[in-house]
Amino acid sequence: MNDANHRLRLRAVRVGIDTRHEPVLFLRRDSEVARSEGFDAMSQVQVATDSRSIIATLMILETELLSEGQAGLSDAAWRRLRVEDGDTVILHHPPPVDSLADMRAKVYGAQLNAAQFNDVIRDIVAGRYMDVHLAAFVAACSGGRLSRQEIVHLTTAMVASGERLSWDVEPVMDKHSVGGLPGNRTTPIVVAIAVADGLTMPKTSSRAITSPAGTADTMETMTRVDLGLTEMRRVVEREGGCLAWGGAATLSPADDILIRVERALDLDSEGQLVASVLSKKVAAGSTRVVIDMPVGPTAKVRSLAAAERLSGYLGAVGDALGLALHIDVGDGSEPIGRGIGPALEARDVLAVLRGEKSAPPALRQRALQLAAGVLNLAGTTAPGEAMARATSILDSGRAWERFRRICEAQGGFREPPRATCHHELRAGCPGRVKTIDNRKAARLAKLAGAPADKAAGLDLAVRRGDTVARGDLLMTLHADSPGELEYALDYFRAHPDVITLAADS
Amino acid sequence: MNDANHRLRLRAVRVGIDTRHEPVLFLRRDSEVARSEGFDAMSQVQVATDSRSIIATLMILETELLSEGQAGLSDAAWRRLRVEDGDTVILHHPPPVDSLADMRAKVYGAQLNAAQFNDVIRDIVAGRYMDVHLAAFVAACSGGRLSRQEIVHLTTAMVASGERLSWDVEPVMDKHSVGGLPGNRTTPIVVAIAVADGLTMPKTSSRAITSPAGTADTMETMTRVDLGLTEMRRVVEREGGCLAWGGAATLSPADDILIRVERALDLDSEGQLVASVLSKKVAAGSTRVVIDMPVGPTAKVRSLAAAERLSGYLGAVGDALGLALHIDVGDGSEPIGRGIGPALEARDVLAVLRGEKSAPPALRQRALQLAAGVLNLAGTTAPGEAMARATSILDSGRAWERFRRICEAQGGFREPPRATCHHELRAGCPGRVKTIDNRKAARLAKLAGAPADKAAGLDLAVRRGDTVARGDLLMTLHADSPGELEYALDYFRAHPDVITLAADS
Repeated sequence: MNDANHRLRLRAVRVGIDTRHEPVLFLRRDSEVARSEGFDAMSQVQVATDSRSIIATLMILETELLSEGQAGLSDAAWRRLRVEDGDTVILHHPPPVDSLADMRAKVYGAQLNAAQFNDVIRDIVAGRYMDVHLAAFVAACSGGRLSRQEIVHLTTAMVASGERLSWDVEPVMDKHSVGGLPGNRTTPIVVAIAVADGLTMPKTSSRAITSPAGTADTMETMTRVDLGLTEMRRVVEREGGCLAWGGAATLSPADDILIRVERALDLDSEGQLVASVLSKKVAAGSTRVVIDMPVGPTAKVRSLAAAERLSGYLGAVGDALGLALHIDVGDGSEPIGRGIGPALEARDVLAVLRGEKSAPPALRQRALQLAAGVLNLAGTTAPGEAMARATSILDSGRAWERFRRICEAQGGFREPPRATCHHELRAGCPGRVKTIDNRKAARLAKLAGAPADKAAGLDLAVRRGDTVARGDLLMTLHADSPGELEYALDYFRAHPDVITLAADS
Repeated sequence: MNDANHRLRLRAVRVGIDTRHEPVLFLRRDSEVARSEGFDAMSQVQVATDSRSIIATLMILETELLSEGQAGLSDAAWRRLRVEDGDTVILHHPPPVDSLADMRAKVYGAQLNAAQFNDVIRDIVAGRYMDVHLAAFVAACSGGRLSRQEIVHLTTAMVASGERLSWDVEPVMDKHSVGGLPGNRTTPIVVAIAVADGLTMPKTSSRAITSPAGTADTMETMTRVDLGLTEMRRVVEREGGCLAWGGAATLSPADDILIRVERALDLDSEGQLVASVLSKKVAAGSTRVVIDMPVGPTAKVRSLAAAERLSGYLGAVGDALGLALHIDVGDGSEPIGRGIGPALEARDVLAVLRGEKSAPPALRQRALQLAAGVLNLAGTTAPGEAMARATSILDSGRAWERFRRICEAQGGFREPPRATCHHELRAGCPGRVKTIDNRKAARLAKLAGAPADKAAGLDLAVRRGDTVARGDLLMTLHADSPGELEYALDYFRAHPDVITLAADS
């Protein structure tokens, strides 16, 4: 009786509406539960099965998509609830979210303690925060409003929010790039070198969110990357390392949620960046981490001053969490490799690993420098010898051999695909390459179809400082359809300053 | 050619999905435009006709709700675009929103100038901000982060964002309640008295958003309230005042958008409250405003210190905008009238206006005091005589007469409806009424069906300090169905502390 009043039971139906990450519940306008519970359109509603529950946003249907007694679910809600067609779901008013008081306290300028950050992050991971709550929390933590102690609390809370790996060896190496630089695909090479040298490096990487390729997208053109934690452990125990997609594991799930909102807001919050990077590393069981921090006017970190401030935060929080860090501040003024797009970057990676003549020198150089950083930080190489040792492991073919074995362990190695359509963009006048805009180059590769079309993107034929004659190749666009090629071309015509030339002096 | 590439034309269809205020666009998974433009689920998309354009959130359909070439629109998107079935709409990537840089600057702690607030508010009204952007802006303006100068800029920008009325008379009186107190329905009485005394008072009121009744909901049980600006002007020119719904006019539209997000966040931002209240008044052409500010532990303003701080802001911003203010800080420790719910509050209002014996004394008293404040502020009454004059206008029946004439001018007067189901809640033990919780009383009235069911809600039979015997009536619940009555009862059983009794001493 009481239950019939407070929690109305309906049959779950997958309505076939993709709302990306957003769980949405659809009810008929004449639904008894909507009326009796006072659920309006856009209300938050708790949808529960016997074993799981989510908070979904309600949309009211005036169309015949549902029959009476049905609760329609968006794809995201369906996946999170793990229901089957016709399963019973129970609708409630969502329980009050106590930690929203902490969120508001942070908005009002309070310093939160460890318990408060734990409560906030736990509720975020449980899906109890609406996007507006997440956005307010992110805004309240931006603009230098987190103390170092608060960043430590936030990072610790984020680690505690998910699963955590541990390994029976020491050290456990890792590598992270602060990002923003297209074609900066050093990770597969660095892991191959480090692991070939006997180190343990259980590397998880992300897929592209707003960029034309993430390391996971690039790796996926050569092998399988969606390893669960058990498979990941098996691969690492056998080969010493892996190159997996982090999203299949459930390390620091709060980070995935906060990053989505930060990107929508385009807020670069140093505190949350630090918590994001370091929480993933601690959760993966890593103990020593090399941080790749490219600095340039169109990279994520835009000045040396910003790099120093960020390094200070990373170091302090790393210390508090028992992580040894080496931060490598590098040149972020132009893309590193030649290719931009999953398969095109994979070809650059393979060219470096295989010692091919076509290997982009800057990618090889940057990967060697970061690999040397890993060997140094591991303490297994005499100081001053790490660079020579990394180079020898790469040039001897041992890194390539190890890379192939890791791919085999993950499900088999394959060559990356090639696009069917190409278009060459050539210099309209002679000159010297003055700038290559990272953001616009990334946009161009995305318009060509990357990362959804693995083979799409672009190949740069020049680097800054190169001298070109009229008619010389600047870049080649790759796409899977003439339409997409046309799109990218349209953008290039409107934004020819992706590459700027200076009259040669 | 260029147009075919960049802006794909589709036929608009109303899909019958109510998303409240949120404009949503639905496209088929296999839609060419989604693929070619790179629109993912939850992307922001500009949907345009020849004359209008909106930004909508995209949801991708895998169901057969749409045929090829159709663009499905949610009700909110449909209304805002003002299209007909089959009209052509054109989809674009939304233009970059430049003012988001100002929003981010505010998040980072900058002081914004007048031009920056204008840009932000203009983009908000144009629907260019996503909810996460709005939430970040609201958070960045909370916690005392707006200077008085910034509140002036924000208020001015909000006025400039909508239409603005002007009147050929001076003074133009207005009245506003800071809110949070159920049954505080003094406005119709105050307007009737002031207008009967020859003053001009073009009053617009809001509907309930989270409360069981707004003044517009209450007035709607007695007359029509959705007057456009032209009709409103006609009524005011004829009768000296009106009691209209503000949402039908388009005064300070930014306020409606920001308030929605503030409520979702439950953030009480003083700066935004001041801008919200005063922008509506300036836009309505008012020059002198009485502010009703009830203070109590379960009201919106919870302490005298908070009331003083808020009054300071209101006064400073009122000065800057040329608004004369009189702030009346009153007792907000319990509901003012007897009824809570649109029609029940209307009956209290009518009882006071008609001088009936059943008129709630506190409502009569509070309305007289606020009306006296209006007469005083207008300067047409000798100091010290305003209260006597207001009382005489009420008691002589002139206020009731004028109220009826205003209703006639707005479309005719009718008696408020009565509910079909009632339930009396009685004291389980003798005692003295110690507290009446404003928030819980409001919740109870809403569970009974208010404000959607105009006749639903509750009638309080007691006030604080009253002594009751066991079995005495505490309140009567009113609902339009036994189910809803049961709901409210369930809540009362779980929260008997809506009213607390102390053992009589």
